[in-house]
Amino acid sequence: MKGAGAADRAGRQIRVGLDVGGTKIDAVAVDATGEIIGRHRRPTGWGEEAVVESIVASVAALADEAGLPISRIGSVGIGIPGLVDAEAGRVVHAVNLGVESLDLADRAERALGVPFRVENDVKAAALGAAVLSGVTGSMAYLNLGTGVAAGIVLDGRIWRGARGTAGEVGHISVDPHGRLCGCGQRGCVETFCGGGALAKAWGRPGALPIRDIFDAADAGDPLASALRDDLYHGAAAAVRVLVLSADVETVIIGGGLTALGDRLENGVRAALHAGAEASPFMRSLRLDERIELLPAGSPAAAFGAALVGASITEKEIVPHG
Amino acid sequence: MKGAGAADRAGRQIRVGLDVGGTKIDAVAVDATGEIIGRHRRPTGWGEEAVVESIVASVAALADEAGLPISRIGSVGIGIPGLVDAEAGRVVHAVNLGVESLDLADRAERALGVPFRVENDVKAAALGAAVLSGVTGSMAYLNLGTGVAAGIVLDGRIWRGARGTAGEVGHISVDPHGRLCGCGQRGCVETFCGGGALAKAWGRPGALPIRDIFDAADAGDPLASALRDDLYHGAAAAVRVLVLSADVETVIIGGGLTALGDRLENGVRAALHAGAEASPFMRSLRLDERIELLPAGSPAAAFGAALVGASITEKEIVPHG
Repeated sequence: MKGAGAADRAGRQIRVGLDVGGTKIDAVAVDATGEIIGRHRRPTGWGEEAVVESIVASVAALADEAGLPISRIGSVGIGIPGLVDAEAGRVVHAVNLGVESLDLADRAERALGVPFRVENDVKAAALGAAVLSGVTGSMAYLNLGTGVAAGIVLDGRIWRGARGTAGEVGHISVDPHGRLCGCGQRGCVETFCGGGALAKAWGRPGALPIRDIFDAADAGDPLASALRDDLYHGAAAAVRVLVLSADVETVIIGGGLTALGDRLENGVRAALHAGAEASPFMRSLRLDERIELLPAGSPAAAFGAALVGASITEKEIVPHG
Repeated sequence: MKGAGAADRAGRQIRVGLDVGGTKIDAVAVDATGEIIGRHRRPTGWGEEAVVESIVASVAALADEAGLPISRIGSVGIGIPGLVDAEAGRVVHAVNLGVESLDLADRAERALGVPFRVENDVKAAALGAAVLSGVTGSMAYLNLGTGVAAGIVLDGRIWRGARGTAGEVGHISVDPHGRLCGCGQRGCVETFCGGGALAKAWGRPGALPIRDIFDAADAGDPLASALRDDLYHGAAAAVRVLVLSADVETVIIGGGLTALGDRLENGVRAALHAGAEASPFMRSLRLDERIELLPAGSPAAAFGAALVGASITEKEIVPHG
């Protein structure tokens, strides 16, 4: 990188984005026009060393497959679960990855010679979903995965909040007599619509417990039916919280549970509709018309990470050789 | 006003703010340094004509008492309950004032020859509370009155949201088996900590029902004790929603119920503390340290209205004579 000048930097127009999940890394390469020109998926390593290695390998494989020399990559953005210090490029408490504390941006930069930026995965996905969906103004991205959290985008920028907990709607209690949440409270939104909580309440073996719940509910199983209703109810509650607090125009639902597709979307919509039936005020908000589901396999999270990386300023990109 | 020039406008340095409540109007005059140099309170009229008349009378009396000619008033801001179209200066559905639809800014401007700006009362109070409390960054103002609503201030500006419902945390349900809310839903935050809902649940005559509830609770009455706990619980739930969605740094509590003073503040603080006991995540948020109570009789709402009025641009202030 030493001595890289303006001409070199002008050639570094490709932005790479990585969505680092508990099981796989989804990587995309985005060109200067915002088009996705390459995509690569590979398993995530476990533990700090392996996470860094799998991230570096992911960027290298993506570049290789797309026929891009690393020297054309202007930035890499990473969306990763856990608490992220975006300024320092550090991630802590990423329990699903076996990471306690990791200087991720520094370590990956040293390995590849490309500037890295790190962001919480849900916040990065929110930005990607906002841009890919063409939403202007305000939106929230509600991630229904093992856990539940949202990211809020106001006027095209991630709203981080005062202490980084903006959008943590999964841990708002909506039922004092509800199930115990992993966080220690009762009746959190996440106990109703988090994949982990639902699988635990279902309690039967199976690789895809939420799909099993839906299939069993279709077949008339009363527990499955109640859990499916819980999922709809919890997601609807999260949507209400986001609109009645931040008043975002649109709530885009993403995350692993969107593999359920129409069954999920129709159920949440119906729950919002039913919840507003007795309330002229809630009806006036037309919440059922303000949700969208990301298509299964959407690259929104990795694309958002690429946008996060692209926000590295020119000054920061000047190589420190 | 005809022919008023730059010299005249330069002299119009006093900003007036009015907090128009269901029973009284609180009016303040603010000088160019932001100091409150006059304050006047009078009863609010009922119905559209009377509301305009009492607002005009309020400004005239304030100016008179402070020895200020009307010609020195650069703007009047009004905080008023109901749905406000701030651009048009119109208020609709201000049911506590007997107002169905009122072109308030236009009518008051015609009467006094001073530019008016109208804002929802809670949003105006939020701005005033933020400035008077010296809060920078993000804050929410939680108004505990007959009803419950919050205003969110981000970087010194009122966050209005996409459709004007930002901060409507009073109608988030936190208990599916809770009391029926006036809005038609069950277990809304407002059913726990709204003065109207609590007075109704108490059901005994008295001019100050919430104070009666507190006194009866102190004397060991079980219903009163339960309702007092509900108040603490509901206010704590509202604080949690505001921090876990918008992640404001500080929540300032205002509104009529702040007349309860320390009893209210200590109770809400204890409820936040107790609610976090079982949850390391909630404890890490230190919510009990992030609330403040406005002092009883604080002019924050009227002061905020003056700030709203002061945001009228120079172009708008050029007299239309």
